[in-house]
Amino acid sequence: MSIVLGPNQYGKAENRLVRIVRDTDRHEIRDLNVSSALRGPVEAAHGSGDQGDVLPTDTQKNTVFAFAKEKGVRSLEEFALTLGDHFIAQTPAADGARIEIEEYAWSRIPVDGAGHDHSFVRTGGGTRTTVVNIDGRGADRVAHVVSGLADLTVLKSTGSEFHGFLKDEYTTLPETTDRILATSLVARWRYDHTDVDWDKSFDAIKALLLQRFAEIHSYALQQTLYGMGSAVLEQHPEVAEIKFSAPNKHHFLVDLSPFGTENPGEVFHAADRPYGLIEATVVRDDASDAGSAWHGVPGFC
Amino acid sequence: MSIVLGPNQYGKAENRLVRIVRDTDRHEIRDLNVSSALRGPVEAAHGSGDQGDVLPTDTQKNTVFAFAKEKGVRSLEEFALTLGDHFIAQTPAADGARIEIEEYAWSRIPVDGAGHDHSFVRTGGGTRTTVVNIDGRGADRVAHVVSGLADLTVLKSTGSEFHGFLKDEYTTLPETTDRILATSLVARWRYDHTDVDWDKSFDAIKALLLQRFAEIHSYALQQTLYGMGSAVLEQHPEVAEIKFSAPNKHHFLVDLSPFGTENPGEVFHAADRPYGLIEATVVRDDASDAGSAWHGVPGFC
Amino acid sequence: MSIVLGPNQYGKAENRLVRIVRDTDRHEIRDLNVSSALRGPVEAAHGSGDQGDVLPTDTQKNTVFAFAKEKGVRSLEEFALTLGDHFIAQTPAADGARIEIEEYAWSRIPVDGAGHDHSFVRTGGGTRTTVVNIDGRGADRVAHVVSGLADLTVLKSTGSEFHGFLKDEYTTLPETTDRILATSLVARWRYDHTDVDWDKSFDAIKALLLQRFAEIHSYALQQTLYGMGSAVLEQHPEVAEIKFSAPNKHHFLVDLSPFGTENPGEVFHAADRPYGLIEATVVRDDASDAGSAWHGVPGFC
Amino acid sequence: MSIVLGPNQYGKAENRLVRIVRDTDRHEIRDLNVSSALRGPVEAAHGSGDQGDVLPTDTQKNTVFAFAKEKGVRSLEEFALTLGDHFIAQTPAADGARIEIEEYAWSRIPVDGAGHDHSFVRTGGGTRTTVVNIDGRGADRVAHVVSGLADLTVLKSTGSEFHGFLKDEYTTLPETTDRILATSLVARWRYDHTDVDWDKSFDAIKALLLQRFAEIHSYALQQTLYGMGSAVLEQHPEVAEIKFSAPNKHHFLVDLSPFGTENPGEVFHAADRPYGLIEATVVRDDASDAGSAWHGVPGFC
Repeated sequence: MSIVLGPNQYGKAENRLVRIVRDTDRHEIRDLNVSSALRGPVEAAHGSGDQGDVLPTDTQKNTVFAFAKEKGVRSLEEFALTLGDHFIAQTPAADGARIEIEEYAWSRIPVDGAGHDHSFVRTGGGTRTTVVNIDGRGADRVAHVVSGLADLTVLKSTGSEFHGFLKDEYTTLPETTDRILATSLVARWRYDHTDVDWDKSFDAIKALLLQRFAEIHSYALQQTLYGMGSAVLEQHPEVAEIKFSAPNKHHFLVDLSPFGTENPGEVFHAADRPYGLIEATVVRDDASDAGSAWHGVPGFC
Repeated sequence: MSIVLGPNQYGKAENRLVRIVRDTDRHEIRDLNVSSALRGPVEAAHGSGDQGDVLPTDTQKNTVFAFAKEKGVRSLEEFALTLGDHFIAQTPAADGARIEIEEYAWSRIPVDGAGHDHSFVRTGGGTRTTVVNIDGRGADRVAHVVSGLADLTVLKSTGSEFHGFLKDEYTTLPETTDRILATSLVARWRYDHTDVDWDKSFDAIKALLLQRFAEIHSYALQQTLYGMGSAVLEQHPEVAEIKFSAPNKHHFLVDLSPFGTENPGEVFHAADRPYGLIEATVVRDDASDAGSAWHGVPGFC
Repeated sequence: MSIVLGPNQYGKAENRLVRIVRDTDRHEIRDLNVSSALRGPVEAAHGSGDQGDVLPTDTQKNTVFAFAKEKGVRSLEEFALTLGDHFIAQTPAADGARIEIEEYAWSRIPVDGAGHDHSFVRTGGGTRTTVVNIDGRGADRVAHVVSGLADLTVLKSTGSEFHGFLKDEYTTLPETTDRILATSLVARWRYDHTDVDWDKSFDAIKALLLQRFAEIHSYALQQTLYGMGSAVLEQHPEVAEIKFSAPNKHHFLVDLSPFGTENPGEVFHAADRPYGLIEATVVRDDASDAGSAWHGVPGFC
Repeated sequence: MSIVLGPNQYGKAENRLVRIVRDTDRHEIRDLNVSSALRGPVEAAHGSGDQGDVLPTDTQKNTVFAFAKEKGVRSLEEFALTLGDHFIAQTPAADGARIEIEEYAWSRIPVDGAGHDHSFVRTGGGTRTTVVNIDGRGADRVAHVVSGLADLTVLKSTGSEFHGFLKDEYTTLPETTDRILATSLVARWRYDHTDVDWDKSFDAIKALLLQRFAEIHSYALQQTLYGMGSAVLEQHPEVAEIKFSAPNKHHFLVDLSPFGTENPGEVFHAADRPYGLIEATVVRDDASDAGSAWHGVPGFC
């Protein structure tokens, strides 16, 4: 028996990069959180501490900021692919790279009915994400893109039922034909290839997920998620599969009967913990091989 | 010398109350975090543990939820005033009450260009707040309302200078005529009285604060805040004073010169800590006495 | 009527300073979070943005780090007093300063039964804090020190009752003679003067607070806190008053009767929100005037 | 092409269970955060919303609390295995279960030199964790146990070098022979089998990890982690492999030269973001197959 190095990676996490485009007086802003990592069999680094094969995480950080100027940030996905290829090219001992980016949304501050040129307010409605994994270089290069949304908090105040479930001796939950359904959605979809209009695809998928959440009469969070995912696959041939992680944010109807008051679906307690956690994948049965696509995708790897 | 009880209060904090108005098929939602507290000279409770003068925090919680149905939630301020008066009425030993409410914003999910009837998405753009303090009862009753906004994150990508400051032997900061100015604003304003159209006043003040942040050419965050506060006092006679707590969220221009790259205000590192913290009050010189208005106002008491 | 500047201050918050004392091979570590603020009537800064009277927050930051080397960090309180006096001396327009410090605890990693010379592990058991307020300079100088503990989470699994409380139509809480009592304690005590052996006083007060929490048979969290505070005042003449903020971290006995199982105080659900919040002051009736001592003390101002 | 259900699971996350053992006056406490999940091909639940094959997350929650009384909590690992087997037995459509438990540490409050019988204080020093995955039932049952530690924050004030790394045109980091090395360690180790004295194994591995961190003269965080992991595998035949996720918590030496002050490794700024992130696996070359062992292990799946 001997002890050996298994899978490993190193990188710089959470570079908080803000890129202002100021080619005209009407500025644009991209507010990003960029993490990079390189992987490969760097036994010397782990054994003797020899760093000759290791591109320091500080250099990775410098590159992220320098590329924001030198290459620009058009879409998250394109910026991540550019960084990943560069890091592999610079690091002969690396056989793979992962780049993760989150984007925080801003809108222009309204002044006299129009958006201001250079003043912005942070908005909600979820964080845009991407994780790019690249394996190999040259003819062997394979690139995967998994994009998505995090912290998209949605709620239906009716149109949600839950009944007919399996029961055992520990079951006390009453069945219901009307409840609040709420979740802080994380959705991640794997693109089938990289020939994609990234911003357009993202905007359309986000709008579709929201619309289907609204429209589907729910018999379970699982069924709602599956319906949302199916719609994305049906309308977006560029998407190979989509995964969801959806905490069921329980809103408990408050019992007001001790006070002689009825509560027909009007007053709820929004609970913190515990919460149901529903995780599901919707996939084409002829989807391309995922390979390393889900490597290091938070919550889904 | 003897040891005595000083100021004290007790209550139930962070009741996460969601109120659905479903009188028609087009539901409304109010998503609140309600905290209550009672104060008064309850020496027995502290000395021997005798709770005869104490309205339990569990009862306060029950009342918050029951009143959401029985009285309804029209505005935060009105709901808080109703709760505060009730708790004082129920508790002879209390000489004051504080009610604090935060509201989280939701918007309707767009479906085919229209907002859905009962499906919502959480939005950003800051949390609405109010703190109501009531002293006494009957003819001696005095009520104070301090409303505000928290977590309103705003940024100017230009139109901000900083120079001409005091210097000593520990000063290294270079002067600048163009920087990013960003803050996660907390603003709290004290109403002069309670005869106010609360929702209308809030909406107008929020819009005005954003507009003035956008319009003011900044020579210091202090000057920007003072300008914002002055505008509120000028246009809103119902407001007696306004206080700000504004972390200066530093965006440092990244030095790309080691890589032969210029960076004319385009690539920034958004830093976490430390941060400048600017706190300021703008007040009418003939403002009514604040009394207990700022009691228990987070960050401003 | 005119609009004027009210109370205001500016400073650098959360300087994360780690000071290693390495005079010998056996290193010492102080891991601090230092915030400073200056106050005074700087109308020009707020009006026109003229910063001539303002010591920039960046300079305040530099000074914190430089003083950690030049003056050293013996106790939190002494370091804070030194910084506060310095900032007032440097800034003619300032009439007061506030310095807040948190300290995170580390212990030596045990190796072969002894603590290692230069390897440490972070421990819990609460964060040590101090807030120093200084008003004026020269003969008019007045200094206040409020030290304390935050996040000291304690629990009694028995020895806690709660009954005999005021009841109204919204009361449903059953009375109990045996419950879990738990809190994440914040305690802040004001020193009567500054001629104190700071580290020794802190250690003794922390031990005493813990001991009294353990020993007191509780009829209410209020009575427990009052007993803890009284003990501190009795044994520590250097302390003028002590304030507590104590969330009652509810541990609800789980009803296992639907499963035919008894639960005599053994299985609890630790709830997040809402929580009771008990705030109390214990003070000598001949205590010195607090002045600005509680200015900017988080949770107690 | 058709759209199908891929991997999925459902469960109740973060049941905050506190178990008091009060068989004698000297109570014991186990403070746990328990999450459960079931997996299997429940197409009906996702398609039509038919929940007939689904054991509700509410029932899973009830079972966690009931079992804490009925079965007791001896070790995290044994409790998790018991729950996992039970859930699979109750749910014919499930083909796997995952149980995750975190434990928060408490120590007895010292009173007159001895630990109190029923009063406790939360301590730090990391959170104990386990994730149990069970596949199948009866003769086909396979159980995996991955235990570990999270949030174990450690620091060396010297004995850490970093040099000899790969350089490119974006490298600016100076080499150093003396720096602070600090991390908030997450370690997870996979047991080779389930015939283990769980508490004893955990305690010994934790002590060994700390000791090796202290003893190893570091040339890179990677080399330190590899040394720590190798020691565990050498001394613990019950462990098949160990994985680390270690943020390199940068402590930057503050440049005091503008103030004419030297800083020979004494004053540091503890930075938040970005941070290096080192992830590594140390494994026996004859380790048993991991199967589903790392399924749903936060940060390592």
